[in-house]
Parts: sequence; structure tokens; C-alpha cells
Amino acid sequence: MSKIAICIVSGGMDSALSVAIAKNEGYKLIGVHFNYKQRTEAKELECFRKITAHLGTIENYEIDLDFFAQIGASALTDKTIAVPTDGIGEGVPVTYVPFRNGIFLSIAAAIGEKHQAGALYIGVVEEDSSGYPDCRKDYIKMMEHAIDLGTRHETKFEIRMPLVAMKKSEIVAKALELGVPLEHTWSCYQSEQKACGVCDSCRLRLKGFLEAGVSDPIEYVTR
Amino acid sequence: MSKIAICIVSGGMDSALSVAIAKNEGYKLIGVHFNYKQRTEAKELECFRKITAHLGTIENYEIDLDFFAQIGASALTDKTIAVPTDGIGEGVPVTYVPFRNGIFLSIAAAIGEKHQAGALYIGVVEEDSSGYPDCRKDYIKMMEHAIDLGTRHETKFEIRMPLVAMKKSEIVAKALELGVPLEHTWSCYQSEQKACGVCDSCRLRLKGFLEAGVSDPIEYVTR
Repeated sequence: MSKIAICIVSGGMDSALSVAIAKNEGYKLIGVHFNYKQRTEAKELECFRKITAHLGTIENYEIDLDFFAQIGASALTDKTIAVPTDGIGEGVPVTYVPFRNGIFLSIAAAIGEKHQAGALYIGVVEEDSSGYPDCRKDYIKMMEHAIDLGTRHETKFEIRMPLVAMKKSEIVAKALELGVPLEHTWSCYQSEQKACGVCDSCRLRLKGFLEAGVSDPIEYVTR
Repeated sequence: MSKIAICIVSGGMDSALSVAIAKNEGYKLIGVHFNYKQRTEAKELECFRKITAHLGTIENYEIDLDFFAQIGASALTDKTIAVPTDGIGEGVPVTYVPFRNGIFLSIAAAIGEKHQAGALYIGVVEEDSSGYPDCRKDYIKMMEHAIDLGTRHETKFEIRMPLVAMKKSEIVAKALELGVPLEHTWSCYQSEQKACGVCDSCRLRLKGFLEAGVSDPIEYVTR
């Protein structure tokens, strides 16, 4: 079995933990990061570099996907659509970026085929989440089948999503246990300086730290 | 039912016919083209524009995917790997670009979700082909399921591949019947001036015209 794992790393807490889990399972790590014209692009890239340096990837891919701005249709990639700050509601929120993880997984699969990887790690969370359809376990499993059929016969890798059923508080605890540099992770949807604390992503992160009984090492805007 | 079809158009004969079929089936057409640092990028883009102007798309997306050069691992995107010219062999050839159609379909799906499309057309051919794994019917059907699960509940589109079981000669005949501007299509893997006539793609195209008893309107290098 190939001991190379392709790890999709956004710079957030969840994907950072998924890389640490891949490392813990004995894989050599290849980090893949996507710059997709999201609001906090520069900050997330900086975190990707720090996280992968800390956890020791053997190679990194920084992939520019400027076309996400051409497609837009999300508060993260179209600055004319405001990021909601009044709490997590019902349904798919306007921060959903159409089929983002499908695009990310397809590119990661191409990189995995090149390197004959044995696994592909993605830090999706279905439980404590914003309810994005491309973060669901059933979707990811179907995508694994599709990638298997659409690549060379000898290309075989499992898509691992170790966080999919974890609560945010469990993610915080596990990240601390595995030495994830949480001070170098970024979750805020809209700010690159101090985290806003009120977007859905900040709310989910803060809830995780609160429930885990640990304080978040990053700075937030004081309100 | 939505009457918008997202059409992936490379500038080749096959995808041009698939657009004409979508038009014939009554869809409003949105054309999507990918510049992926392939050897004949400029020529294919020129053909995309002519084909879509001729067939009358309501909107076009020209998507730059420079990262294909970072991944490489194919004779089409890595100029240090020669394009084979000695005839179609067994197995997956070096012109295969890892999971290219997976990446293309994922991006087209995001565009389809934005526009609430009812169908997505792709001109894959499984029969008279180079044997690329991402051109197989079984793969495309699985990808359709994956896209369905990974997008919003109300996003529903079929992936249509009207050419998948056609022979190249049937493609030529059907293209002539539907008024596809074959003089504005490009298939050669390596030349942007006169087609080489000897790469796998030229060989498949020429075989199609020969068997259809029609002469190809594009120019070839005289040997």
C-alpha cells in the first residue's frame, strides 16, 4: 500500500487536525491548498504554510483557482453578498460555495493519481456544521467511487474524512492531543486581522472551544 | 424543467457536436471552455469562440486552469513528455491528463448549480477513443450521482453524453447533419497551425472522415 496521503488543508482548524491524523496513521504527507478568491485568501495561505511546516509535509501544492470569482454565487467569493453574522439559520447558507469540495477533491485526486497516493484526507464535518451539501459523508463516499472509476486502474485511494462525525469540542480536544498548532489556524469568513467572532464559522469554532473548556489562542474583535 | 444546458466545449469535433445536439433538444446553451495549459491552448480557445458564436450560446465561461502545468504528468501539459505519433497502442496513453474530466465536470457542475441548469453536456467518446478512464460511461454516471449528493437539494441535472457510444464516422455524419462548423474545430494534440495528422487525436479524426466518406475541411501537414 502506498504510504502517501494527499491532504487538503484550508488553514482552518478542521483540516489541520485531519493532517495531524494522517501523520499519526503513518503517512508521508503532501499538502494541497486552494486560493479561490475567498475573502480571507491571504490569511488562509499563511496558515497553510505554518501548519504544513509544523506537521512536516514532504511536498506542498498551492493551487490558484481565480475562476471562483467568475462563478461567484456565494458570500465568500462575491463581495456584494454580505456574510451573515446573526447566527446559524436553517437551510444552506449564502456562504455555501457551489460544489467547492467537488472541485477541490477532483484536483486533489489528480495530484493523488500523479503521486500514486494511498489516501486522500479532507477535514469535512457533517455534525457541527453550516450544513453545506458537499460536506456530507454520503456525498464524499460517492465521489470516492466516481474517482475510482474515472482514473487509471492502478490508481486506488480511499478518501478519509476522520472528522465527519465529530463535534467541534471533540475536534478541539483531539487537535490539542495531537499537537496541532491551533494558534496558526484561521476560521473567520470575513476578517484577516482579528477574527470577527460572529460569522457562522467563528461561532462554530468558539462553541467548540467553549464546550471543550479551552481558550482559543487566536485574537477576536472585542465587542 | 430548466431549459438551460451547460455545455463543456473543448473546441474539438466531439464537443462541438454535443452542443449542437443540446441545441437541437431545445436547450438554451451556456458554453464552458477550459484553458489548462495544454499545448494547443490558444487554437482551442479560438475554436471555442467560433463554435459557440455559430451555434448561439446565451453565455460563455472561459476558465483558466493554469495549475494543470503544476501537476503535469501528461504529454499534453508537460512539454518534456513527447506526444506519441506512431499509432494508437494498448493501455492508457501518456496523453492522458489525470482526472481532467473530473475537474472539468466539477467546475461545470458549480456553474450549473449557479444557473439552475437542467442538463450538462459533455462530448466524451468511449468507443473510438484513446481509452482515457475519465471518458467512460460508468464513470460519468457515477459522477452524476456524486454531483447530485454534493449540491443543493433543488440542484438537479442530468449529465448527457450523446456521443459516448458513437463511432467517429457517425460523429462526422451527425455533425454535418446538424450544421456543426467542422472547419472551426481542432483536434490535433501538438500543432496550432496545420494539424500533424499523426497524433492519436488526428488519427481518430481522420479515420472518422475516411469512414464517413467525407473530406476534412481543416489543413494537415503534407507528408
